[in-house]
Amino acid sequence: MPSTASIPGYTYGNAEVAESPFRLDDLAILKQTLLFTEADVQYLRMAGTVLEPQVEAILDVWYGFVAAHPHLVAYFSTTQGAVLPDYLARVRARFAQWIRDTTQREYDQTWLNYQMEIGLRHHTEKKNHTDAAAGAPTIIPLRYMVGFIVPITLTIKEFLKAGGHSSAEVEQMYAAWFKAVVLHVTLWLQPYAQPGEF
Amino acid sequence: MPSTASIPGYTYGNAEVAESPFRLDDLAILKQTLLFTEADVQYLRMAGTVLEPQVEAILDVWYGFVAAHPHLVAYFSTTQGAVLPDYLARVRARFAQWIRDTTQREYDQTWLNYQMEIGLRHHTEKKNHTDAAAGAPTIIPLRYMVGFIVPITLTIKEFLKAGGHSSAEVEQMYAAWFKAVVLHVTLWLQPYAQPGEF
Ligand code: HEM
Ligand code: HEM
Repeated sequence: MPSTASIPGYTYGNAEVAESPFRLDDLAILKQTLLFTEADVQYLRMAGTVLEPQVEAILDVWYGFVAAHPHLVAYFSTTQGAVLPDYLARVRARFAQWIRDTTQREYDQTWLNYQMEIGLRHHTEKKNHTDAAAGAPTIIPLRYMVGFIVPITLTIKEFLKAGGHSSAEVEQMYAAWFKAVVLHVTLWLQPYAQPGEF
Repeated sequence: MPSTASIPGYTYGNAEVAESPFRLDDLAILKQTLLFTEADVQYLRMAGTVLEPQVEAILDVWYGFVAAHPHLVAYFSTTQGAVLPDYLARVRARFAQWIRDTTQREYDQTWLNYQMEIGLRHHTEKKNHTDAAAGAPTIIPLRYMVGFIVPITLTIKEFLKAGGHSSAEVEQMYAAWFKAVVLHVTLWLQPYAQPGEF
């Protein structure tokens, strides 16, 4: 994948990222629940090759969706209602890298640790800190974290079709992407759950 | 839909079901986030006609999945590991009714109230109470609530294909079902979220 060194606030694999309490044996059981197998890893790699040249177009769709909904763009704005363009731009670059990470990274403990980090960044512990986003809301509500599974999943299909693969392969890549999105969001909810309930 | 009077523990629309704090204006915004529109309501109705004669076959798949995974059947067993067949059977009848409700009910405040009830039944407040399931775990962990979105979504596709509809209609019914599953699970997570975070 292209170098990640110039992505502001992207700390995947850095020493400063804390160890997640969620371990590889927890992950193995969660993957079973999600029907996530080695075949899905292969289809994610295939999806990565199809999506790589389309990353900016995908982000245009996702950012367009956020921009079109006041209740979503609010989380990138001050509580007084002023949009924060630097915040949007810096997060966009990490969101683009997330597409690459989701399709190409080994889902190991380093990956689990960064999922905890992303969860904390949507939650009160770290939201706004990475980008010095002064005055923005301090948390993305859980209801929208889970709800967003739908647009992030549905909108990828058209992009997966654009790589010349058979419709059977497109369906498999789409199912793998769906599983990966649910897996990521599930892990990101750990900070939101009451103690002992995750 | 067939009479629901004989389904043990099914209290949809009953006076004893509490008012949910989640109201119709909250629902309208959440539906936007999920891309859920009136068209999806129509496709859910269509899906309902296709799924109605297959409800037991669908429950066989879902229950087979649970039975095949010790970490899932644990929630229908005593903490000592003894499966509770009456619990499984009573819940199965309500799960079958849920397919009908999802595809055929108006998503009004009565529906919202019952979603709060279902959330509480997966959570410590009410789990095990409806069926006097003595000795079973007191909560379904949040990670499995969200993870289960995948099997409940993916497995419905084959059943949707069995009604003689065009592949375009099958895709629309499938997308509507997916949105409905995410919507339901989102609402059921309200008891799990830390105060103010839902
Ligand atoms: C399927 C659900 C979601 C996905 C896949 C997703 C993806 C991402 C990713 C990849 C990042 C950057 C992580 C990093 O720093 O490396 C991020 C950050 C962010 N997302 Fe989400 N997100 C989701 C839900 C939401 C929702 C519903 C909102 C509401 C508008 C939202 C708003 C934000 C904001 C404001 C940040 C920056 C947080 C910070 O201050 O660091 N996200 N998201
Ligand atoms: C997509 C996620 C899920 C769906 C759609 C779903 C659906 C349902 C439905 C419709 C009911 C009956 C509600 C009623 O009483 O009217 C129910 C109850 C139940 N479910 Fe789930 N469920 C989900 C996740 C899970 C998971 C992951 C487990 C773990 C095995 C689970 C275990 C149970 C149990 C034990 C009950 C009975 C709760 C009680 O004591 O009342 N569910 N579920």
